[in-house]
Amino acid sequence: MLTQTPQTWSQHFAKRTRTLRSSVIRDILRMTEQPEVISFAGGLPDPALFPSDALAEASHKVLTTMGQRALQYSMTAGLPELRTWIADWMKQQGCDVQPDNIMITSGSQQALDLLAKVLIDPGKTIFVENPTYLGTLQAWTIFEATYTTVTTDAQGIDPDALAAHLGDGDALSYIQPNYQNPTGVTLPLARRQQLAELAATRGLRIIEDDPYGQLIYDNDPPASIRSMNPEVIYINSFSKVLAPGLRLAWLVAPDEVMNKLQLVKQGTDLHTSTATQLIVLELLKTGILDSHIPALQASYRARRDVMLAAMQEHFPTDAHWEVPQGGMFIWVTLPKHIDALKVLEQAITQNVAFVPGGTFYPNGGGDHTLRLNFTNASDSKIREGITRLGGVLKEWL
Amino acid sequence: MLTQTPQTWSQHFAKRTRTLRSSVIRDILRMTEQPEVISFAGGLPDPALFPSDALAEASHKVLTTMGQRALQYSMTAGLPELRTWIADWMKQQGCDVQPDNIMITSGSQQALDLLAKVLIDPGKTIFVENPTYLGTLQAWTIFEATYTTVTTDAQGIDPDALAAHLGDGDALSYIQPNYQNPTGVTLPLARRQQLAELAATRGLRIIEDDPYGQLIYDNDPPASIRSMNPEVIYINSFSKVLAPGLRLAWLVAPDEVMNKLQLVKQGTDLHTSTATQLIVLELLKTGILDSHIPALQASYRARRDVMLAAMQEHFPTDAHWEVPQGGMFIWVTLPKHIDALKVLEQAITQNVAFVPGGTFYPNGGGDHTLRLNFTNASDSKIREGITRLGGVLKEWL
Repeated sequence: MLTQTPQTWSQHFAKRTRTLRSSVIRDILRMTEQPEVISFAGGLPDPALFPSDALAEASHKVLTTMGQRALQYSMTAGLPELRTWIADWMKQQGCDVQPDNIMITSGSQQALDLLAKVLIDPGKTIFVENPTYLGTLQAWTIFEATYTTVTTDAQGIDPDALAAHLGDGDALSYIQPNYQNPTGVTLPLARRQQLAELAATRGLRIIEDDPYGQLIYDNDPPASIRSMNPEVIYINSFSKVLAPGLRLAWLVAPDEVMNKLQLVKQGTDLHTSTATQLIVLELLKTGILDSHIPALQASYRARRDVMLAAMQEHFPTDAHWEVPQGGMFIWVTLPKHIDALKVLEQAITQNVAFVPGGTFYPNGGGDHTLRLNFTNASDSKIREGITRLGGVLKEWL
Repeated sequence: MLTQTPQTWSQHFAKRTRTLRSSVIRDILRMTEQPEVISFAGGLPDPALFPSDALAEASHKVLTTMGQRALQYSMTAGLPELRTWIADWMKQQGCDVQPDNIMITSGSQQALDLLAKVLIDPGKTIFVENPTYLGTLQAWTIFEATYTTVTTDAQGIDPDALAAHLGDGDALSYIQPNYQNPTGVTLPLARRQQLAELAATRGLRIIEDDPYGQLIYDNDPPASIRSMNPEVIYINSFSKVLAPGLRLAWLVAPDEVMNKLQLVKQGTDLHTSTATQLIVLELLKTGILDSHIPALQASYRARRDVMLAAMQEHFPTDAHWEVPQGGMFIWVTLPKHIDALKVLEQAITQNVAFVPGGTFYPNGGGDHTLRLNFTNASDSKIREGITRLGGVLKEWL
């Protein structure tokens, strides 16, 4: 009898990863990492605004005065003092949360991963905005989620359209209400109330993701959906208000979900870095956010306005956009016959880059849209990049 | 028509987590966290040996001189300089590895999680030592792995017994050859060579996990299996040689696996903390390991010997153990009729704790074994704890 023995690892690849491939757009954008390219593609904050010196001081203090604790294993759910600090901070913002319902995660991407482990069987349907956040699709597609897109307009997801899907006893939704990535849209108060009501009366389960909620440039956003209904799972992060390289975020979940999350996080990475948690807590206790968040707002608001003014001046009149009230992105809609991927290919020859919007539509569509980031370039680079991009767009329109 | 709408999250729990429960032993051991209990249960290093001051200096330097890079998003696979440092270090130990085949992970627990995502479909069989590492079972049981235990004796896993399972074209194995957790056993050179040969000729795929390889108290351990066959996946960590609270480890994998791992880690947590990677690299470049590892060895060797001497004096003659040549644990075998879980319950009343060995047997058995950790208590606590435990054991034997 001849037996075929596997000589390669690929014969052991799990079903979930057999079709997993790098996206075409990621491959194209990798070519834009040269310094001569002005990139509006990433979702990067400006590193010049990172509180490096304050973090240097906090880390030195933590490691010299409580190094033994900072460098040892610690609780899976996160340090109690940091969870208490977060609960107090959320309370100040009108959201009543107990520390026991908070889990510290290694970035909000890990919060998405842990939730997938607890909630997503292969084929599970998630109701999402259309377009929706790409990182969520990346986290959940590994677990073979499928997506039902819900009608989404210039004010965000439409609760009436979502309600029309309910009644099958299995409605799990994912929503970014504040300055959504990629559209920059803010969900109005009435829609949030309607969603909280659907959660209370129709069994809708909501995962509310709020990474940009502090990057406010105009009016304050409405209250979180979580503040209206404690059954909502809520995710937030220190990546935008402090620094993403720390990989520190948190999620808020009801008891029954938290119990499962703890077991799952234990098997996933035991716990998030004890040192990082203590250092960030040390920094937070100095009250840094009281001055740092307004400084971020002022800086990013100015860049948003520079980009909007340059777009007004250099983009063809057939390109449309709304003014985002916060966050990191301006969303552009081109005439339907324009393929933003082709525009990107040409833009790269002019050393300017963006993300074609189609990548944010889980079930296809949106090829005539694009996302521009305004937080990672200087005013002069923004003006220069938008001028070049305007030139490319005018050739197409 | 009445429709039942789900009002609870539990109706959305994925199949994989529906049966996930906290272990009885974990619940019992939680009661032992009071300061009056002498615990030999955990796998904790001694925090007094952490290089806190050197890390304080390194972190201050990194954050003040390259804070913008340290706090920004970075590459999913890890910082190239750190991967190069690790490749050089492994080369010094006789293991030829390219930096491109190294991925930095958030602790070795995350390496296990990422490998599960790439390799484990529900029902997938993994060949393991019996007993095997509990953290691996926790990581992989979430992905619904099943385990085939391979005959394991006082020299570790038996390659002949493993070979007898081969030929079905689907043999994936997980092995800790150095100072295994829980048994402390070192796999002899001949067995490693035989396993490397089975990988080359019979298609056996091996995941080699090596967290304790530097905690050497007697002779150096034999070469790694990875050094004999580049198709072996290899995991190692900074948790034991520097500090576990940092959550920094790495894995080495062939190209085809690395490609999938990159896609999977992107969706799992984007990347491991940039700051932690740069700080540890800064520290490693000072050459700290050249003096720090010998210091750890001297300290832990002495404690091992204190524990062994106390066991010799106070344990009943029916209890048996081997001398571990390195690592963190002494493994004790009691007469077959003794249930170590019951011994634990009584030991706790005497304020001393350990882990009953049955928990490390994935398919049951081993109820008459127990694991003792010797790295986290002082000499006097070790003597006192072993005296108390010896008293309890003498009542049972």
